[in-house]
Amino acid sequence: MNADKVPDIIVGRLPIYLRALQGMAEKGMRTTSSQELGEHVGISAAQIRKDISQFGEFGKQGTGYSIPYLIDKLREILKVNRMWDVAVIGAGELGHALSHYQGFTDRGFRVAMLFDNDPSKIGKKVGEFIVEDSANMVERICSAKIKIAMLTVPAVAAQAAADKLVQAGVRAILNYAPVSLNVPGNVHVQYIDPATHLQRMTYYL
Amino acid sequence: MNADKVPDIIVGRLPIYLRALQGMAEKGMRTTSSQELGEHVGISAAQIRKDISQFGEFGKQGTGYSIPYLIDKLREILKVNRMWDVAVIGAGELGHALSHYQGFTDRGFRVAMLFDNDPSKIGKKVGEFIVEDSANMVERICSAKIKIAMLTVPAVAAQAAADKLVQAGVRAILNYAPVSLNVPGNVHVQYIDPATHLQRMTYYL
Repeated sequence: MNADKVPDIIVGRLPIYLRALQGMAEKGMRTTSSQELGEHVGISAAQIRKDISQFGEFGKQGTGYSIPYLIDKLREILKVNRMWDVAVIGAGELGHALSHYQGFTDRGFRVAMLFDNDPSKIGKKVGEFIVEDSANMVERICSAKIKIAMLTVPAVAAQAAADKLVQAGVRAILNYAPVSLNVPGNVHVQYIDPATHLQRMTYYL
Repeated sequence: MNADKVPDIIVGRLPIYLRALQGMAEKGMRTTSSQELGEHVGISAAQIRKDISQFGEFGKQGTGYSIPYLIDKLREILKVNRMWDVAVIGAGELGHALSHYQGFTDRGFRVAMLFDNDPSKIGKKVGEFIVEDSANMVERICSAKIKIAMLTVPAVAAQAAADKLVQAGVRAILNYAPVSLNVPGNVHVQYIDPATHLQRMTYYL
């Protein structure tokens, strides 16, 4: 397995497979086929077999995949066979929702800190978190060795916040601000912007 | 221009270009180049020129692109030179955040209705909306001719809600529930699942 050699588009499908397999496991299923998995995720069986075979031989012809085994392997490949602490920057409605989101822990993530620069929010309790002053962001994230952040600040504040995150040693940013970020090549950014997703669909309507 | 002939990966980049151009326009800029636009969005100038040329000749060699003109053209291509009403299904924290989100209106979308099946939420005011009973969802969405919905219900409820949306005539679903949906071929689905996006990045860490 060589991380550099696998196209990012394949890497992007692995979390979808893992999510579907975890759903199957919750229903008590123990084995599946590329055909069945494909029907769950809307991807062809051939594509799934090809994607998974990039990382080794995890299934047997005729008997298919062991669900618990394939879950373990995918968690290992995606490095979520451990718990990652995540910092949330921006304690608005979205920051609140993410801090309370129940769907992270069984997928490898745990919100550990929540920051805002608004004096009326700093020090307030949000679920189990106290909103911290973003002035201390670099120091706090750096000393906690947090490598992942979710950015929910307004668009105008996003680049400056991203610069601070990079300075703090963050290597992966999930950016909810509707603006492209400039970061060094060793920092990964993924974008979540509902309007962009909607526009991609209206094209076809 | 033939919608069927343009690869979806190109369609997916157009909203990113539009967003960057609107940001430039807000800063008072009137013209740009594929080089400059590329630096904003992290995509090569050659790729941008190739993508945009799928739809016609919108720039001039040497003088570049007129920002207002290219914005108009992209809005036309993406069919957001009009306002789309959107139904939000699920009035939890995320549904609240989306109902209040300020970033939709200047990009072609307006939340028009908010539904939930929880009796303690139905009838409650959320911003300017009254949470409606999802039992009436099909009838309400159908009679309002709403074609777009955002799904923020729990994973276990998502497929049933999607079936209702399809029945109501919805053609584009932005699904926040962490589960793949089965819908007819003429219905478009885009997925927003933060854990999936994070896992795509931890692979590289």
